[in-house]
Amino acid sequence: MTAKSLMNEYPPAQDRLVTLANWRTQPFNDWSYRNVRRLLPTADIPASRTPSPFDDARQDIGGITLQDAEGKTIALNAWLRGTRTNGFVVLRNGRIVTEWYGEGMNGTTPHIVFSVSKSICGALGGVLAAQGVLDPDRPVTAYIPEIASSVYGSGGCTVRHLLDMSVGIKFEEDYLDPEGDVARYRRAVGWDVTPPGHSVIDLRGFLGMQKPDGKTHGDTFHYVSTNTDMLGWVYERASGRALSDLLSDHLWKPMGAEVDAYITLDAHGAMRAAGGICAAPRDLARFGEMIRRRGVVDGRQVVPGSWIDDINENGSAEAWARGDFAEVFPGGNYRSKFYQIDRKRRTLACLGIHGQYIYIDPPSETVIVRVGSDHIPLDLPATHTWRRAFDAIAAHFS
Amino acid sequence: MTAKSLMNEYPPAQDRLVTLANWRTQPFNDWSYRNVRRLLPTADIPASRTPSPFDDARQDIGGITLQDAEGKTIALNAWLRGTRTNGFVVLRNGRIVTEWYGEGMNGTTPHIVFSVSKSICGALGGVLAAQGVLDPDRPVTAYIPEIASSVYGSGGCTVRHLLDMSVGIKFEEDYLDPEGDVARYRRAVGWDVTPPGHSVIDLRGFLGMQKPDGKTHGDTFHYVSTNTDMLGWVYERASGRALSDLLSDHLWKPMGAEVDAYITLDAHGAMRAAGGICAAPRDLARFGEMIRRRGVVDGRQVVPGSWIDDINENGSAEAWARGDFAEVFPGGNYRSKFYQIDRKRRTLACLGIHGQYIYIDPPSETVIVRVGSDHIPLDLPATHTWRRAFDAIAAHFS
Repeated sequence: MTAKSLMNEYPPAQDRLVTLANWRTQPFNDWSYRNVRRLLPTADIPASRTPSPFDDARQDIGGITLQDAEGKTIALNAWLRGTRTNGFVVLRNGRIVTEWYGEGMNGTTPHIVFSVSKSICGALGGVLAAQGVLDPDRPVTAYIPEIASSVYGSGGCTVRHLLDMSVGIKFEEDYLDPEGDVARYRRAVGWDVTPPGHSVIDLRGFLGMQKPDGKTHGDTFHYVSTNTDMLGWVYERASGRALSDLLSDHLWKPMGAEVDAYITLDAHGAMRAAGGICAAPRDLARFGEMIRRRGVVDGRQVVPGSWIDDINENGSAEAWARGDFAEVFPGGNYRSKFYQIDRKRRTLACLGIHGQYIYIDPPSETVIVRVGSDHIPLDLPATHTWRRAFDAIAAHFS
Repeated sequence: MTAKSLMNEYPPAQDRLVTLANWRTQPFNDWSYRNVRRLLPTADIPASRTPSPFDDARQDIGGITLQDAEGKTIALNAWLRGTRTNGFVVLRNGRIVTEWYGEGMNGTTPHIVFSVSKSICGALGGVLAAQGVLDPDRPVTAYIPEIASSVYGSGGCTVRHLLDMSVGIKFEEDYLDPEGDVARYRRAVGWDVTPPGHSVIDLRGFLGMQKPDGKTHGDTFHYVSTNTDMLGWVYERASGRALSDLLSDHLWKPMGAEVDAYITLDAHGAMRAAGGICAAPRDLARFGEMIRRRGVVDGRQVVPGSWIDDINENGSAEAWARGDFAEVFPGGNYRSKFYQIDRKRRTLACLGIHGQYIYIDPPSETVIVRVGSDHIPLDLPATHTWRRAFDAIAAHFS
């Protein structure tokens, strides 16, 4: 079955029908990840009226080789074809070296990026902090007093703890447990239908119910998506504006995005900062390039350079070493929603489930975007292979 | 309370929170009708990359007077201000005479048009017929054989009967009965949440359950929205393409629309041809002007002139006189989803609940668009007052 055969009959046959019951599973996600707004309520994140152009530096890099998960040497072309890759963009020094798109996709098709949304919201935090709208060192309750009885109101939890995923929260980020925290969370955000007999709750109500795990905030990298939704809520309350408007005015427009992005909403209009952004591959490349250039696009300072320096310099290696992903990127860290996967090179990564990646490697002037519809949410062997692919491309440019 | 105070807190207070439970009621519809995609799944109807420009012929027509529902003489300005008018555009000979927008709206804000969607789909039928994709005289079952056991498969029901709302269908179009046909229909299309204990059904499944009322198809104008959804389904099956793509390629793009429109979807991706289109007021004006010019925009024949002639000439006065709205527009008729409200002048109207109107009066070269968020779905005194307002403007131009 190919992506093309999904949802193009009237009505689609049962095994080609994409609904909220199957949209995050194969093969249905081949279609759904580029058609999220056909499944869920969404808000626009308007692009610029004058998109920043890309210079062209096309070259055939399909022959670059990498080691796949079984240790076999494979060409990049074969790796792209053999994976559920929907979009792949490689920039060198801001110029397009290669673009590769799957069926139904092109560089301007919005595709869900899941937790890459977190990094985008992390960058937005820098803008709001520079404007004095947001103080990362203030307690979360300074902005949202009504969550005082939750983990976010206990133990001196600050905005910085949200930004760095170091909240001592009791939440099991298990994507596959049908009755776990993630399952209840996904009903709250509207991504899954609430089954009969289960209580209906909205995202902000769900956030207010989260409890501490007893650890000191700031000590340990503990990856919990709700922290980023909490952050988005703080942004909205601090600024008095919807997250979608903030993302547009402070990132998408000034960075010269060419396609309106959008973000999913719960039943009360709460926007899913942690994973609901859908954006065009070329605009994700612009975002990565803006980060690589210390926040500057066409001479405009979009995100403060100091915020990006802080990401590069001040992530806690100790919190990382104690944390959930220490084995995934040894020696890495996580700061303001970006993964630093090579401290010496200042290589940054943004990661989303089902194979969403932005890779930013300053020494080789490389930015790579990959969006896809991988079968399982978190496939560590695949993540490592992608990392090798990205590193091989960066090495090719060095 | 003004529209501005809805949904602009994080979270909104309970009495300012717009959800699927209240979105079609006042005051919530002031916000929801211009934010439909924040509440429902939607599909884009892409606009043209080269919008057709409007010439300017601004004049102050706010002093034109009309009789309101109580028989008092009132100025147009006061009438606009005193009603839930969100957008108002007046063209004379294709030039903009006046534009007037409510809070949060401008000429490029998509606003739901409810059953004006039907007229847009009626015009699309002309394009598909001219292409040989659709034969209005064929039975519905020639396209959708699986609805043979429904009203649409009985008594020789044809596409023409769908187009002219003359199907002998047993369906009570009562917008206010919480357990009636309309209520079940609105759950099927996803506009209302299905309450616990009620069975969940999708739009196409619902269409297949509709039964005859025993009348001969073609004899009587009987306004039932499902007929238009059935028509949209026929278009999709006949063309093998989604309704949103057909609307874009055959209407929105060639007529030079400037803003992507969109349409609401049910849980299986079925598009609500009968009422789910959301479009910018200026593009609705372009649509009306295209109809006034016998289907031509900038020298391009968008809708066949013969299809529009047929609308003007071949509506059945007898079916109308026997039908649901005979008293509303005496001497009128309904053809291909357009109301002819003055046969001699060839004045056409498109109508949607809660106060959506397009008015097309060829003798005075007038096209008027009004979108709004009126309190009740079908307010006949208000409809008559609007008609007097439109006629007064046309008379002013004559």
